[in-house]
Formats: sequence, C-alpha cells, structure tokens
Amino acid sequence: MKLCVIGGDGIGPEVVDAALAALLVLLPQLEVHHAEAGWQTFVKQGVALPQETLERARECGAVLFGAAGSPAYKVAGYRSPIVELRRSLACYANIRPTTSPMGSARAVDLVVVRENTEDLYIGEEASDGEVATALRRISRAASRRVGEVACALAASRPRRKLTIVHKANILPLSDGLFRDSVREVAAGYAGLEVEEVLVDTAAYRLAANPAAFDVLVAPNLYGDILSDLAAAFGGGLGVAPSLSVGEGCAIAEPVHGSAPDIAGRGIANPQAALSSVALLLDRVWQQPALARRLQAALADTLASGVRTPDLGGQSTSAEFTRALCARLQAS
Amino acid sequence: MKLCVIGGDGIGPEVVDAALAALLVLLPQLEVHHAEAGWQTFVKQGVALPQETLERARECGAVLFGAAGSPAYKVAGYRSPIVELRRSLACYANIRPTTSPMGSARAVDLVVVRENTEDLYIGEEASDGEVATALRRISRAASRRVGEVACALAASRPRRKLTIVHKANILPLSDGLFRDSVREVAAGYAGLEVEEVLVDTAAYRLAANPAAFDVLVAPNLYGDILSDLAAAFGGGLGVAPSLSVGEGCAIAEPVHGSAPDIAGRGIANPQAALSSVALLLDRVWQQPALARRLQAALADTLASGVRTPDLGGQSTSAEFTRALCARLQAS
Ligand SMILES: CC(C)[C@H](C(=O)O)[C@@H](O)C(=O)O
Ligand SMILES: CC(C)[C@H](C(=O)O)[C@@H](O)C(=O)O
Repeated sequence: MKLCVIGGDGIGPEVVDAALAALLVLLPQLEVHHAEAGWQTFVKQGVALPQETLERARECGAVLFGAAGSPAYKVAGYRSPIVELRRSLACYANIRPTTSPMGSARAVDLVVVRENTEDLYIGEEASDGEVATALRRISRAASRRVGEVACALAASRPRRKLTIVHKANILPLSDGLFRDSVREVAAGYAGLEVEEVLVDTAAYRLAANPAAFDVLVAPNLYGDILSDLAAAFGGGLGVAPSLSVGEGCAIAEPVHGSAPDIAGRGIANPQAALSSVALLLDRVWQQPALARRLQAALADTLASGVRTPDLGGQSTSAEFTRALCARLQAS
Repeated sequence: MKLCVIGGDGIGPEVVDAALAALLVLLPQLEVHHAEAGWQTFVKQGVALPQETLERARECGAVLFGAAGSPAYKVAGYRSPIVELRRSLACYANIRPTTSPMGSARAVDLVVVRENTEDLYIGEEASDGEVATALRRISRAASRRVGEVACALAASRPRRKLTIVHKANILPLSDGLFRDSVREVAAGYAGLEVEEVLVDTAAYRLAANPAAFDVLVAPNLYGDILSDLAAAFGGGLGVAPSLSVGEGCAIAEPVHGSAPDIAGRGIANPQAALSSVALLLDRVWQQPALARRLQAALADTLASGVRTPDLGGQSTSAEFTRALCARLQAS
C-alpha cells in the first residue's frame, strides 16, 4: 500500500504528520512518499501543484492532503492546488460525512456527496475591471458519475434516502441537467427514497432539522457550502473529514483550511485529518476493522480529556498524537 | 400613497390579501392597484410578468408580491417573474432581516443584504443535452450600489458591523470584484467594522453561531442561500420577510414560496407578508410608528394564541387576520 502525503501550507503539515503517525501504527508496512503543493510551493517554484507531485500522487493512488493557503487577490498563474488535484486525479466525488458528537441533542448522521470537477470551479473567469464573468459548467457525465457514488452510498445505509440539491427554478438548463442525470441513475437503485430540494431550502432545512437528512448530492459549489453548514452539527469545521474518490485515486483531506493564525504553534487539532484517514482505510483500502480501531482510539483519547485548545483542552498536537498512538498500539 | 398588489400563485394571493387588510387599517387612504404575474399568468397569457403589471408597479413605486410557482422543467419563454420584477424595477438590494423569536436561547438579530440583479440570475444558460453552461455576471456598479445599502444599514445599527461574503479564493475575478467594490464603499463609512468571510465558512458560522452576525452583504445566489439558512433562527422560513429597494421602487415580499400543498385551504400563515409590509412602512414610506404598531399587533395576536396550523395553532388565515386587524384598530 502506498500513500502520497502532501502537507501544504499553515497547519497542513502539522495535521498530516499526526495522522500519518497514527496510520503507521496500524499499517507499519505502508510506503509513504512526501510531495509538495500549496501557496509556499507556488512562491518558491511558480507553480502550486508541481508535475512531480501529481505523478507521485497518481503512482500512489492515495493522497493525504493537509491544507493549502490562498492569496487574498488574483495572482497570475496561481490556481488552488487542491481543486487542481481533485480534477487532475479525476477524484470526482467528495464524500463529506457529518455525525453529531456523542451526547448531542440531535442525532445527525448525514453525508454530503459533492461533485468535485466542474461547476464554477473550472476557473473560467474574465474581467475588464468593471464587469467580471465566470462560467459554470455542468455535464451529464460528471453528474451521473457523482450520482452513482451518492446512490451506492445511500443504498448501503439504513435509511436509503437521497436528497438531490439544485436550483433548477433559476438554472433550468445547468441545474436541470444535474438533477435529471442523478434522477436517471437513482432510478436504477430499487428501494431508494429520492427527493429533490432547492439549494436555498436545503440550507434552511439543514439548519433547522439536520437529522432529517441521510445522503445529499450536490453540484460542486452547493456541496461546498452545504457540507460546511452541516459541519456545525458534527462538532465543528475543525474536525470535519472528507474523502474524494473517483477513477482509481483517492484523496483524504480535512475540510478545514490552513489556519495561518495558529500555524507553527504546535496546537492544531489533527482530528479532521485522522478521521479522513479513517475514511480512506474504510472505503479505499478496504480495511474497515482498522478504520474502526482508529475511530475508537480517537473517541477514547478525546473522552480521556486529552484535547487540543480548540476543544477547550491543554494538549499540544504532539501530546494528543502520542496519547492516540499509545491507545492504538494497545487496542 | 400607492401600492401595486400582485398575489401570484399558490398561497400568494391568500397572504397578500391578509397583509393588505391590515395595511388598510393603518392607511385607509392607500390607493391599491391589483396586477397579475406568475405561472398561472404564464399559462393564460404566455408571459409570466405582463407589461401591464410592470407599468402598474412602476407607477405605484411600491409592490406587495405574494409568491410565484415555478415549473419543474425548462419551459420555453418562462422566466421567474419575481426575478424579472426585481431587475426591471432596479430593486437592486434585497433586505432580509432575521430576528430570533421572543424567548429563544440565542439573540439573533442580523440582516442579509442580497444583490438582486445579477450573478447566476441573469438567465444566460446554454445546453446541448450533454453539457450545460451558465454565465455568472458581477459588476462593479451593481456591487457598489448594494454595498451602499448594506453599509448605510450597518452604520445605522448599534453594532455597526458588516460581513462581506464571497468566494474569491475560487472566483478571484468575479467575487474579487464584488469584495473590492463593497470594501471601497465601506471605506467611506467611518466606524464600521468590516470583515470578509468565504461563503462556505459563512454558512458554517451562521449555523454554529448566528448571533455573531450583524449585517451581511452577498452576491445574489449566496444571499439567497444564506438568508434562507438564517431564517431557521428567526422562527422559520414561513415567517421570514423581505424588502427589495433600489431606484425609486420597492417590493415587499415574503421569502417563502407558493406552497402549492396548502394553497386554497385557507390556512396559510400571512406573517411573512405582514412583516414585509412592516418593512415597507418603515423604510420606504417613512412611517416607523405605523410599522411598530403593525409589529406589536402581530406579536400580540400570536401571543394571545391565535395562530395558523404551521405554528401549531387552530386558526384559519381569515381568523388570524380578523384578530390582527381588531388589535390594530384598538392600538
Ligand atoms: C480551499 C477551497 C478551494 C476548498 C473548496 O472550495 O473546495 C475548501 O473550501 C473545501 O471545501 O475543500
Ligand atoms: C423563487 C426564487 C426565484 C427566489 C430566488 O431564488 O430569488 C426565492 O428563492 C427567493 O429567495 O426569493
């Protein structure tokens, strides 16, 4: 088994190091390759996602990505390396689960499946300084393939419910195509409950009653927004994991960003990276028992009071990781 | 004073009738003109927003709009009449307040100011059945004018805080232009606290801690999504009001849709329409005392237990409206 580790910027390297330490307890024989990407890489090399990194990622078939910083303003030649990576590796479906923390009032257990390769993320913008345009692209093929991932996931869960998110009342051609393509795919799955909800209503319902949702499937940008929203019911953005899957490659990646304000202070919470690795173990490497061991060790470590400052604790990232690895070793 | 009343589809006519009855108690001399728009109008006349309606609206300078139904699929020639109306009347800023109901745990008091004329709402789509595209348009002029409304509003409120919502890390030209245009405008307002937040993070923070926000300003689609999200903390989508303002015309309009499932049953909750009318009284007709009287009567009626079924009550829309008007008369 091979893993390409890309720390990136800010707290990215800190959280992937922690996740990697835990992973190596579970899979000592894992072949690890480190590679570079991000804003720092762009500053040094003039490219945010070097060709070498892309090749290394392809070779490994699995990537652990930390976070990439973004410049606040348009920088010629700079494009988000994570968006490039998702598209270049054809990791077309981004799986973003939200489960309410133990003891919370609402039993939220949902997954946002986000299209990962098109929509407004294609980077086709123009501006004359007074008027700017951006192109949105939705294709049947990309909608169908993310629909397949979402339907298969929904079919494997107890509630078997799929919510298709769109805004076809305003975008009948593009969001209509997304909706119809997913509906076609869903028709092939017997026993699936399929509903469709406008993106604005979906945001409302997620905020008002997140427990009503099972699997949501959405175009790229709506999926971005709704998965962050949902994270509010899963212990926060700081602990939200994600896994991008597609044609033979996968990317495990925390949903949080590079958090430059706390970078380098040794206090970043590696939980999101760890949970992303658990998704990778479970869904890509077909090691559900190891994934469960990792999740149990994570829950036990937190329950024992070892927590980083963002969760009100006193532990550094290193202390947290040591405690976690000790539990893993003992489990 | 003149008002153009457009009931539209579904429960639209029911809720505007109720709001109008209350308004006529406060302003018996109001000159009321009825006009048509919506899906039913399209079915009958081949156009969803007839020229005559537009002229009537312009003449009156103020519109009370109920709701418009949308076909589920692309219908040649059909365009959302409310979107057309906002743009044709140059009602460029959509003001959507959310205030937590009395007695709720969180003291939410925020306003989403939504750009109302461009973004993906310009209706420029194309499709060959396999690939669809939609054009997004952001202009400096439209961003500045909605920025003015948002800054003036923020400056008039105790917290004086403005949150600019964008996704300039992915859309540096279009969302960058929005962000920069609003920032330029905000620089002209002394004492304003200005922050910027990516739309995904904004959705997360709104869900996690809505009380932290004061005034948010956003491009059209983000504003659509975030205002619905915020409504979850203001008693629900069914009671969320809005007011669109711009160049000499205003539209009061509940945020909810045409609710075909309950249309014609006499049980629609007119609260959102009533609160939208209160915004019109306050901000457009400069009648803050009358707006307060309406709001007080609304609160008292609800507190007295007269409620429509969506709020767990037993009253019909007509009973609710009668009780409200009686209170208004007595106030
Ligand atoms: C950092 C950014 C490019 C990214 C996105 O928009 O996809 C992030 O918000 C995410 O959700 O992974
Ligand atoms: C009905 C629809 C066209 C409308 C919009 O998207 O603007 C609605 O969602 C709203 O928020 O007023």
